[in-house]
Amino acid sequence: MEKIVSLARRRGFVFPASEIYGGLASSYDYGHYGVLLKDNVKARWLEAMVRERDDIVALDSSIILNPRVWEASGHVGGFSDPLVDCRTCKQRFRADHLADSEHDEVRCGKRPSKRPGETPDCDLTEPRQFNLMFQTRVGAVEETGVDVYLRPETAQGIFVNFKNVAQLARRKPPFGIAQIGKAFRNEITPGNFIFRTLEFEQMEMEFFVPPAEADKWYRYWVAERVAWHVRFGIRDQNLRVRAHDADELSHYSSGTSDIEYLFPIGWSELEGIANRGDYDLTQHTAASGTKLEWVDSGSGERFLPHVIEPALGVNRSMLAFLVDAYDEEVIGERERTVLRLHPQLAPVTAAVLPLIGKDAVMVETARGLQEELRRHMSVEYDDNGAIGRRYRRQDEIGTPWALTVDEQTAVDGTVTLRDRDSLAQERLLVESVRDQLLSRLHAPWTPPARGE
Amino acid sequence: MEKIVSLARRRGFVFPASEIYGGLASSYDYGHYGVLLKDNVKARWLEAMVRERDDIVALDSSIILNPRVWEASGHVGGFSDPLVDCRTCKQRFRADHLADSEHDEVRCGKRPSKRPGETPDCDLTEPRQFNLMFQTRVGAVEETGVDVYLRPETAQGIFVNFKNVAQLARRKPPFGIAQIGKAFRNEITPGNFIFRTLEFEQMEMEFFVPPAEADKWYRYWVAERVAWHVRFGIRDQNLRVRAHDADELSHYSSGTSDIEYLFPIGWSELEGIANRGDYDLTQHTAASGTKLEWVDSGSGERFLPHVIEPALGVNRSMLAFLVDAYDEEVIGERERTVLRLHPQLAPVTAAVLPLIGKDAVMVETARGLQEELRRHMSVEYDDNGAIGRRYRRQDEIGTPWALTVDEQTAVDGTVTLRDRDSLAQERLLVESVRDQLLSRLHAPWTPPARGE
Repeated sequence: MEKIVSLARRRGFVFPASEIYGGLASSYDYGHYGVLLKDNVKARWLEAMVRERDDIVALDSSIILNPRVWEASGHVGGFSDPLVDCRTCKQRFRADHLADSEHDEVRCGKRPSKRPGETPDCDLTEPRQFNLMFQTRVGAVEETGVDVYLRPETAQGIFVNFKNVAQLARRKPPFGIAQIGKAFRNEITPGNFIFRTLEFEQMEMEFFVPPAEADKWYRYWVAERVAWHVRFGIRDQNLRVRAHDADELSHYSSGTSDIEYLFPIGWSELEGIANRGDYDLTQHTAASGTKLEWVDSGSGERFLPHVIEPALGVNRSMLAFLVDAYDEEVIGERERTVLRLHPQLAPVTAAVLPLIGKDAVMVETARGLQEELRRHMSVEYDDNGAIGRRYRRQDEIGTPWALTVDEQTAVDGTVTLRDRDSLAQERLLVESVRDQLLSRLHAPWTPPARGE
Repeated sequence: MEKIVSLARRRGFVFPASEIYGGLASSYDYGHYGVLLKDNVKARWLEAMVRERDDIVALDSSIILNPRVWEASGHVGGFSDPLVDCRTCKQRFRADHLADSEHDEVRCGKRPSKRPGETPDCDLTEPRQFNLMFQTRVGAVEETGVDVYLRPETAQGIFVNFKNVAQLARRKPPFGIAQIGKAFRNEITPGNFIFRTLEFEQMEMEFFVPPAEADKWYRYWVAERVAWHVRFGIRDQNLRVRAHDADELSHYSSGTSDIEYLFPIGWSELEGIANRGDYDLTQHTAASGTKLEWVDSGSGERFLPHVIEPALGVNRSMLAFLVDAYDEEVIGERERTVLRLHPQLAPVTAAVLPLIGKDAVMVETARGLQEELRRHMSVEYDDNGAIGRRYRRQDEIGTPWALTVDEQTAVDGTVTLRDRDSLAQERLLVESVRDQLLSRLHAPWTPPARGE
């Protein structure tokens, strides 16, 4: 993990938020390449969910909802962590982590080599429940304000809009509603870089189906989502599907599978696929007085759909792609660090490099190529430093292709295309570069073999 | 405005948030077409700011920052509205709106035909200042928590990252940092549909320049931003630039121009371009102890950059595009409503319509065309209802091109291409459709003449 954090910091992907003020716990800001990579992750998800399908529509609901939404959903009453205090070191821990040997970030401050509860020095209180929702107040003054919450998940914004969307989009189950947006959880021990942060972006899709088809669609979506991670470069050996045991299931779920990834902290949830049954629509029907059933205007058929939910965090997905892409390689006497990202995820698709940054002819050709390419992909122009250093900089941010304009370009109209993974170099006519790159960018892709 | 709200609702662009629970003041959710339109507005801004330029990089900073950021920026002390209460009707008003004849949304509830302050029935308190930032608390329990704020603007997240970005992105002024993200303001009388909402998305860019060049770049960015709105279809006669008078300027600004749009509520700010001088970097240098100056590692030259800021709301920009695109037209005996959106903003680029939805041959051709097109643009397949009704549905959501597969398609391999604005129909070979549409999609575009 240290290597990923260091690279992310060094190349400006991710750095601690509010750093000049000493930061803020578990909060991170995303620099230029981080934004481009994160936007690509979201775009690939949205393509797979909405653009490539006819049965899913998009939604963008508010972060601050009417607070009755969270009463009905069960979050006001039940979305909490059990916390204990140590009377010796005055630190606070999650009670459910104390007994869990895989979580060693919880330690008594006075006994850093021992675990709280494992030593008589720790004097723990009984567990108390603390709600994880951030609370704030709408309305300018105390006496007339309304207590509201920052949403801890985007899903509820989908459920309360089910009827609107079904009518307006003229959809009949099975159909889905997809949403990307920020969510907030006031957790006590987040940590582990961007694996878990106070604010994070979710990509959630609620798929509404006739009750009898719920199990079929649940299995469909587990397979579909595994295929998405593989399609964009996560290697098979680092992915596994783990079905929750009965005693692990959330109160609303009649079946949940985690797609787990082998993060540096061990196998951990990357995405969850839950069969939520009719729990949410039933709750909101009862609380709002609006029947959230589906009614066929022709036949009069009516039912309360069941819901299958694949949900993952943008930030955690980005971390998995970074971890899986990270590679160090020794070539001859040189070492290089390279991010072997899927070309459609890479922050920069192509780098355009004039061999000599002060050669007017080379610069003109390189600038022309840059202008043409950037109407179709993310392009970076770099004339700074020796060509080898420039290649290594692009390797570190995962740029799949570098195009070098050199002396020969003026002679025969060709440039060098260097491949990030194979290091193969070939010469292409300048006027064929665009089509060549577009065709490679959209070709099926498999992760290259690793250096070691 | 009623017509826009009605269309937005009817076609599922925008509807009130948490509607089944009675809504929440000034909060809106975005349905399928609303998300697609909003995403297009953001993509066009990001293209113009980052992808088409070499001198601006992207950033995504947190919504919850270290609270010292907002002390240094002046928001804790000064970001407030003066409010008065009416002791008669118990309503609360913005004091600065009472005297302003353009704002008639503030009325005494008991005397709806008169304005508060204009009648002896209104018994107003002295104005009091109320801070507009939403406050919440990080940390699970009261005694150890930290009071924090939801950011009321994205700009400060850029300033506190200035040094990181300048170093990591190896940039020298003039250069800019662009950010799109949510901001929150706890305002007392928002209203006017999505013109002003409690939570909204901002598109802000801070352009850091040598102090002597500030005025030049200020004028550059005013012109550049006007051109952007025009490029994507806002008509000249509905735009104007208004420079703030000296007594209108914010404390941080040495010059501000509003790009105003003729909204249904009258001329109002669409975008602001401010010359912020070195106010923000000076404040954060003093408060954080980190010198936010720019230092040339070669020459040792150092200075505190001045900042030019073009900033607008995504939601308000989307509203302006909707208003400007809205048209009603009488053709013969028929009326139609049409959104004359720029093709690169339209939620759906092309509709594919089999003339007879149950004709297997037509369906197969139409599905094949849909599959090919949607790798390159947003496509909708519609086989539901008479063809005239389907065209009108696409007109209402602003789809520039409809492709109809009919009997002749099987004979000569052509489909009908219908143009949303001219209503011209022409026949194109199926295999030429993709290139035809891509070329029209990327051609320069001017808003068509209106029906009346």
